Amino acid sequence: MTDREYMELALTIARSTRGRTWPNPMVGAVVVNDGNIVGMGAHLRAGTPHAEVHALEMAGEAARGGTLYVTLEPCSHYGRTPPCADRVIESGVKRVVIAMLDPNPRVSGRGVERLRNAGIEIEVGLCEEESRQMNEVFVHYITTRRPFVIMKTAMTLDGKIATASGDSRWVTGDLARLEVHRLRDRVDAILVGIGTVLEDDPELTTRLPEGGKNPLRVIVDTSLRIPDEARVLDTKTARTVIACGEDADDSRERMLREKGVEIIRMPVVDGKVNLKALMEELGRREIASILVEGGAEINGSLLSAGLIDQVMTFIAPKLIGGTGPTPIGGKGFSRMQDALELERVRVERFGEDVAVIGYPRKG
Amino acid sequence: MTDREYMELALTIARSTRGRTWPNPMVGAVVVNDGNIVGMGAHLRAGTPHAEVHALEMAGEAARGGTLYVTLEPCSHYGRTPPCADRVIESGVKRVVIAMLDPNPRVSGRGVERLRNAGIEIEVGLCEEESRQMNEVFVHYITTRRPFVIMKTAMTLDGKIATASGDSRWVTGDLARLEVHRLRDRVDAILVGIGTVLEDDPELTTRLPEGGKNPLRVIVDTSLRIPDEARVLDTKTARTVIACGEDADDSRERMLREKGVEIIRMPVVDGKVNLKALMEELGRREIASILVEGGAEINGSLLSAGLIDQVMTFIAPKLIGGTGPTPIGGKGFSRMQDALELERVRVERFGEDVAVIGYPRKG
Repeated sequence: MTDREYMELALTIARSTRGRTWPNPMVGAVVVNDGNIVGMGAHLRAGTPHAEVHALEMAGEAARGGTLYVTLEPCSHYGRTPPCADRVIESGVKRVVIAMLDPNPRVSGRGVERLRNAGIEIEVGLCEEESRQMNEVFVHYITTRRPFVIMKTAMTLDGKIATASGDSRWVTGDLARLEVHRLRDRVDAILVGIGTVLEDDPELTTRLPEGGKNPLRVIVDTSLRIPDEARVLDTKTARTVIACGEDADDSRERMLREKGVEIIRMPVVDGKVNLKALMEELGRREIASILVEGGAEINGSLLSAGLIDQVMTFIAPKLIGGTGPTPIGGKGFSRMQDALELERVRVERFGEDVAVIGYPRKG
Repeated sequence: MTDREYMELALTIARSTRGRTWPNPMVGAVVVNDGNIVGMGAHLRAGTPHAEVHALEMAGEAARGGTLYVTLEPCSHYGRTPPCADRVIESGVKRVVIAMLDPNPRVSGRGVERLRNAGIEIEVGLCEEESRQMNEVFVHYITTRRPFVIMKTAMTLDGKIATASGDSRWVTGDLARLEVHRLRDRVDAILVGIGTVLEDDPELTTRLPEGGKNPLRVIVDTSLRIPDEARVLDTKTARTVIACGEDADDSRERMLREKGVEIIRMPVVDGKVNLKALMEELGRREIASILVEGGAEINGSLLSAGLIDQVMTFIAPKLIGGTGPTPIGGKGFSRMQDALELERVRVERFGEDVAVIGYPRKG
């Protein structure tokens, strides 16, 4: 097996922990000596040993003189567990291959430095892109302190999210809607604009046959127009935060707080809550990922503010014609060449529906 | 090998003649005796022998007592060649497996009847769907006498065919645009509305590195508003037909005819050329396939008139926001459940762009 194959194995091991390691990243490790795998492990849950520690424990004395493959730089600091770099040095491995450095700018490179000072041969960057993508939410949050924003939309094959009269039930089929509930289960929060609440009165809860957690519901409602009977105000099933403007009505705020809703007052720009400031506030509240479920207005504001980190567009193979709304409204760009281009684009099928998933090209 | 495998081989042989057999369909045939393939053939070009004749010639005496697999019912009438059914009977095969009956309602079933009357065992329907799809244009034209209408559109991942200010250059990338030229090469005609001519002044010719034929250009221009300098009026490179209303200006018609343009006067409904009547007229002119290249207005009219036979939507992974036009305008449907649903949906990639291709569900 080659270096790459060992690292791909470490990545596969790491991916098996998806959704269980938060607030830590997924990490996998493999120890090889003389062409034989002698240890492997993954970080399973915050507060438990890191991946390289598991792998080195398994290897025991067999690690001495061998190579450690690890998908993330070993840590050099005392956190909930002792520094892994020290454990690596003790193990006696002579070479460490690392997919990516710690994305936390405050500690990035320190683990490598410690290992190098101990005379260990170091290689960094093998399968870096795969490791980064695996932990895209973690990396984004650690480096920006804002949540990773996934913009999810659903449109017909002629670009409409609803008919001209506003009928949007349903654009996509059962399997695509099930996938949206899987997405809700994976993120820390869901965000919609007040327009979506007024039109569709959604619950914004996770409804999966196998169960699942309800993310925080974030409603952007500059003037606190939300109706008393809106379903998202039922805070028995899930928590709700409403982001309103600094000048929103105080008595309305009190009334909503009595229902158990949290209110965040935000600066207003052009009559709308400043979404960048809101994302920073949500980041301070340790919201690392947020699923935006429309509509066109809020999506337009996110596009203008450059706040989209991933796009997931479900396309239903049906045509409705007419003048219904499209997934993203707002001001938009006036020249096609200024469009926000996506990269790493992949296509998935959910029954008859097609999902196109991509990431805004940076810079 | 099974019956299905022999028929799939016949289909593969048939497909190798794509684009060369018009006005005849693609047909392939395989002759098997005692578990051995003893003959195979395809219809190569109108006026030359049919597939089963080639296959039986190759088999010679070895056909006697064997099975003929053929993707289309053998003909029973004298056309440009003698009836194939007679040749099949002469060959001495004892069994004929046919994918689909002749779609021409005037002769469908007659070949089978003739073979049965000669005591040959007949099976019809093996791989029927594959055979029908392979000859979808032929089948549609023979049964409706109207061209097979392919609606091609290109939009951003947020459903726009242009920015709000009308900029549409370019939505898709090089590979998708190359594919459009391949489509033009394959169809008998291209159709656009006058709006597209006024906005983009396209040439509507086939520009392929490997060469290719220019289809007939059909412009729907109810009031003959087309500017004298429009590129499609250059009839040296390709023929142009303009479909106008019955009341369009006579002197304008004369002027356009002098440039070599054909004018078809059509009944007008709601201020627009009746597209169904136009398709029937184009069918009479032996236009069997037509590629509609927008814009939103004409696409909306085609949707309302139920005239779309295939949809090919290129989706560029980019976002522009705002209020630009979508692929299909017009009146549209007011209820999502009334949307025209597509079936047999497939996805292809052209570079970063995604193409979704499907067929309206009938009935």
